[in-house]
Amino acid sequence: MPDVAAAPADTRPYSPGLEGVIAGESSLSQIDGEAGALRYRGYPIGELVEAGSYAAVAELLWTGDWNPGAKLPCQPVPDAVMTALRALPRSARPMDALRTAVSVWGSVTDPSWPATPDQARALTAFSPSALAAFARLRQGLEPVAPDPDLDLVAGYLYQVNGRAPDTETARALDAYFVVGAEHGFNASTFTCRVITSTRSDLASAVVGAIGAMKGPLHGGAPSEVVEQIHEVGSPEKAEQWVRDTLAKGDRLMGFGHRVYRAYDPRAAALRKVAEGMEHRPEWLELAIAVEDVALRVLQEKYPDRPLRTNVEYYAAPVLMGVGLTPDLFPATFALARHAGWTAHAIEQGANNRLIRPDVRYVGPAERPLPR
Amino acid sequence: MPDVAAAPADTRPYSPGLEGVIAGESSLSQIDGEAGALRYRGYPIGELVEAGSYAAVAELLWTGDWNPGAKLPCQPVPDAVMTALRALPRSARPMDALRTAVSVWGSVTDPSWPATPDQARALTAFSPSALAAFARLRQGLEPVAPDPDLDLVAGYLYQVNGRAPDTETARALDAYFVVGAEHGFNASTFTCRVITSTRSDLASAVVGAIGAMKGPLHGGAPSEVVEQIHEVGSPEKAEQWVRDTLAKGDRLMGFGHRVYRAYDPRAAALRKVAEGMEHRPEWLELAIAVEDVALRVLQEKYPDRPLRTNVEYYAAPVLMGVGLTPDLFPATFALARHAGWTAHAIEQGANNRLIRPDVRYVGPAERPLPR
Repeated sequence: MPDVAAAPADTRPYSPGLEGVIAGESSLSQIDGEAGALRYRGYPIGELVEAGSYAAVAELLWTGDWNPGAKLPCQPVPDAVMTALRALPRSARPMDALRTAVSVWGSVTDPSWPATPDQARALTAFSPSALAAFARLRQGLEPVAPDPDLDLVAGYLYQVNGRAPDTETARALDAYFVVGAEHGFNASTFTCRVITSTRSDLASAVVGAIGAMKGPLHGGAPSEVVEQIHEVGSPEKAEQWVRDTLAKGDRLMGFGHRVYRAYDPRAAALRKVAEGMEHRPEWLELAIAVEDVALRVLQEKYPDRPLRTNVEYYAAPVLMGVGLTPDLFPATFALARHAGWTAHAIEQGANNRLIRPDVRYVGPAERPLPR
Repeated sequence: MPDVAAAPADTRPYSPGLEGVIAGESSLSQIDGEAGALRYRGYPIGELVEAGSYAAVAELLWTGDWNPGAKLPCQPVPDAVMTALRALPRSARPMDALRTAVSVWGSVTDPSWPATPDQARALTAFSPSALAAFARLRQGLEPVAPDPDLDLVAGYLYQVNGRAPDTETARALDAYFVVGAEHGFNASTFTCRVITSTRSDLASAVVGAIGAMKGPLHGGAPSEVVEQIHEVGSPEKAEQWVRDTLAKGDRLMGFGHRVYRAYDPRAAALRKVAEGMEHRPEWLELAIAVEDVALRVLQEKYPDRPLRTNVEYYAAPVLMGVGLTPDLFPATFALARHAGWTAHAIEQGANNRLIRPDVRYVGPAERPLPR
């Protein structure tokens, strides 16, 4: 609008995207990008994957207590949620289905504020059942009721596939859930805290977080890693494929990270679980082979750039390996992040202050309406 | 956790609640708290209420163009949404129903990014129909299809009540929608922009915003103003009631505002519409009488405090006056704010940068897992 007078400039400092701005305090996780370290409440992520389970890690985040024997079986889907899921078109995106399911869940459960560990347990144990139900409904299959004897991750796969996974498969996905459980003030977690800060309920906060994670700048594009591994095809073709890709100027998916300059500790933990599997799915086998080649070639071509493997590189083959289709990856990531989101809602509520930043007005100066 | 070593202190500056931190730029609205002014794209709110309509103001926010003849009739509710609304318990909170309706709507409509004015029109014209449908369903009444000849606000009341409102009633609610359409970076609008910044879709952003507005620190407690007017009972009892309330140390609801030190320009615009009505509802009549007394007594008792009427004071009697029950107030406020939320999503998408602040870690230092 060049013919319109601008308002006087607001000269207060402005950090686009709030980059480098501290928006809150948390004792849930600590990220050390230089050292390649991630810790939940002080415990290194590698130790948590090795000695714990998603249920134990979720309890640690919610309560601060470490109980490696904690269990969290999936919960049944309330009727109102199932009706809403059945009404969705089969073509609906799983993230939309999950967002809707949590919204309906919020309308039939306790909305009291501040959020409690019991609310967090109930929601975190409900969502896998809802997503699994939708995954079956869209294939024309009936949902499967949760098995109370299975822990959350095995119970999720059971409800998706209609049969319980073997121990190794459940263990691989559990490791993925542990490393995906929490990661500081990313956009979805920050959304969760902003919503909670108005004294709104846990379901509203998680519904907003799911919406934020749905964006490709946050939830990522895990199917791209799948396509890459698919293109490579077999370990012996890896070196040629990597060299050709870089020669064309294309990016290798799954390498480099905004924060981690060293090897992403989440990728390291997932690779370790993968290497320990007796019967590795073909996807994992291939991913391990390609990674070794890719790191060697990247180091050779770009010795000064810290291009290390990131978590998405291993997330994709683990998720494929346990039998999930790529269009379920973002929503499965959202299931894993439930522990962190709900823990942040509890933490925000325990020491609340409304999160309400300012905005710089850059529009037209005061003017009368045209008559 | 006093027996646990704390992590080294992060000494970067931290503004709790991001107070005073500029989180973005916008040309949509400008608030001048000292002068008691609010302008949308430079046009004073009072002029917009007088010469415009909600449809015209929404178009102004979405496109920057002023077209006082713009129309925006309510749109029909898709089948999947209606099924989900029918599945909700009658006791569900209207904000939960609206959040769910928008989530389902997002799963059956165009999710392309960035958001467009057409998407904003479609969503803003859908939501009143969905909320009205739920308002009827919970009373055991069948929903009423939208009348394409009625503009948005009259069409909303038509679908709630099953009959079209008279011109004065529609005008009063339209004024409420205009003053509620947009107000800078409040918590819900900020939520909307954070979600949009991940390149997530408009429905996800508005679903998150509804969740944020659901919190009483943001959406407020309009029923408290209703109770207050109810308690006063009649204009001649106003003075005694106001003096007794202040003598007891209780707060007068609807006076004072975080930003506006002068008379809230939204309240001024609503009062002006109310005063111009030929047949004022009893609620408005009483509110006007009580306000005059309250301002006089507040000025007498607290000459140094800027306790002026705020928008909530007039929102409540306007909403009661047009026949809405108090438990529909927050969701009706959310309908009005759709114009602003969706305009912010368009603005964010047009010049996007991921909104991702930092967090200060205040938990335990690195430690091994107990064995």
